[in-house]
Amino acid sequence: MFSGLSAFPLTPMNESGIDEAAFVRLVKRLVDANVDSIGALGSTGSYAYLTRAERARVAQLAVEHAGNVPVMVGISALRTRDVLTLAEDAQKAGASAVLLAPMSYQKLSTEEVFELYKTVTSSLSVPLCVYDNPGTTHFEFSDELYGRIAQLPNVRSIKIPGVPTDPEAAKAHVARLRALIPSHVTLGVSGDALAAMGLNAGCEAWYSVIGGLFPRTALAITRAALAGDAQAATRLSERLQPLWALFGQHGGSLRVVAAAAELRGLVEHPTLPLPLKALDGAADRQRLAVLLDELELA
Amino acid sequence: MFSGLSAFPLTPMNESGIDEAAFVRLVKRLVDANVDSIGALGSTGSYAYLTRAERARVAQLAVEHAGNVPVMVGISALRTRDVLTLAEDAQKAGASAVLLAPMSYQKLSTEEVFELYKTVTSSLSVPLCVYDNPGTTHFEFSDELYGRIAQLPNVRSIKIPGVPTDPEAAKAHVARLRALIPSHVTLGVSGDALAAMGLNAGCEAWYSVIGGLFPRTALAITRAALAGDAQAATRLSERLQPLWALFGQHGGSLRVVAAAAELRGLVEHPTLPLPLKALDGAADRQRLAVLLDELELA
Repeated sequence: MFSGLSAFPLTPMNESGIDEAAFVRLVKRLVDANVDSIGALGSTGSYAYLTRAERARVAQLAVEHAGNVPVMVGISALRTRDVLTLAEDAQKAGASAVLLAPMSYQKLSTEEVFELYKTVTSSLSVPLCVYDNPGTTHFEFSDELYGRIAQLPNVRSIKIPGVPTDPEAAKAHVARLRALIPSHVTLGVSGDALAAMGLNAGCEAWYSVIGGLFPRTALAITRAALAGDAQAATRLSERLQPLWALFGQHGGSLRVVAAAAELRGLVEHPTLPLPLKALDGAADRQRLAVLLDELELA
Repeated sequence: MFSGLSAFPLTPMNESGIDEAAFVRLVKRLVDANVDSIGALGSTGSYAYLTRAERARVAQLAVEHAGNVPVMVGISALRTRDVLTLAEDAQKAGASAVLLAPMSYQKLSTEEVFELYKTVTSSLSVPLCVYDNPGTTHFEFSDELYGRIAQLPNVRSIKIPGVPTDPEAAKAHVARLRALIPSHVTLGVSGDALAAMGLNAGCEAWYSVIGGLFPRTALAITRAALAGDAQAATRLSERLQPLWALFGQHGGSLRVVAAAAELRGLVEHPTLPLPLKALDGAADRQRLAVLLDELELA
């Protein structure tokens, strides 16, 4: 399950709770499009803002409505104690895998992060994907740490935060990481703008934000790249450049994708937890609405 | 209560729960030393790693054992909903004030942070201290945002993350901030190594980590500075230079202060929540033990 398109849906919510019907709608879109896996409660699923009970419920709903599509569930938390509890909850809900980022408040040391993964992987009965997202965790993995963690039991994939923007440099980057980690551990790219580049450079998976809302669009890129048609993948990704630019302007993908889901009527407004706000200027939203139509995102 | 020495104790804990007896012991030390206020559940108090129930209990214990010393309670959380709940809990526990940082997972915008403070301050019945700590929140306040937030109801102090290391530059920095915020809002310095510099430059308070463990040492610096004896404050702070250097080497004060509390027998080992670890190399701990004696910290 750690190859191809892994689609990360939003968890639609307001200040009162989770919009379960809207979440199920998003999951069903992914199943209908036949994505390779679903990543529930990733950063796009706002896991960090939910209670334990809410996270357990979202995991349960995802598994229940995912049909034969395997579901990976985010179990990250600031405290090891809570990660262990969330891992149990995810496994009870029927998750096929779990996703763990070294979330931090106090900056973490390399040894603290290694011990976190060691403790958690030793108690799992499902595979784990290492989630490297320095933009939210403020932790930078070294290549050497990737290598050490990849050898822990149950580790099956590493979600890397992107690749260099030059194709040759991207290939060299992926080749260097590949040499450090065992072959049973896949590399998956995230940072949607760099996904085609990462897949063309040898990443086996795309852990995708837009794939969680527009699975057919993301699948077209993924399948072209994995079939060896690098040019087609690049062309399909470059077509979406105006969307990647919006992500860059608004501090990442989340606020833009949330607004896109609202504009398409797939979720209510608001859908993000305060203090976070989806893209909310009238001009910005109008521009996004036009883009969604022009780019025929689906 | 937003002037003088505000002492921030550790919340001693292990993987099973909070060591209530040790926490009460730390609070009583502060009361015996006659600090000006106590800051429970600050970053040093590991607020971010505790459940709502644990935080309510710590707030209650602090107030119960603080005698006439006013207690400020940290109410920060990633989600506005949770901050509001924690504010209620803190007020029910008898907190004299609350402390709020713009904690983040997704990077926050200026408007999102302003709205957070606006929402929270409008529902408070105790004063609030703005907690600016970019090292843990990854949010940078602009001077203009300080000015806007300082005008919200119930805001009475701003805990700034430090001052420039040059005395004249520090004075200019504090003077510039003072010109932006109303006179009923005090400025308090944090970052212990810069405290004497900040107080000498015109800060009214020191929000202090070492004050939470060695209140007499911190009070001597504070009282010298606030009595106008800048030279004495500087001399007392410079004597502690080896300690400030250790903070710098170990990613901040927390791991060092936790180890110091363990070495002095004030808390059990471990006292920090995993994945965090107190200073734990044998050589580092030995060096710290020698320092604690040489510097006569009390």
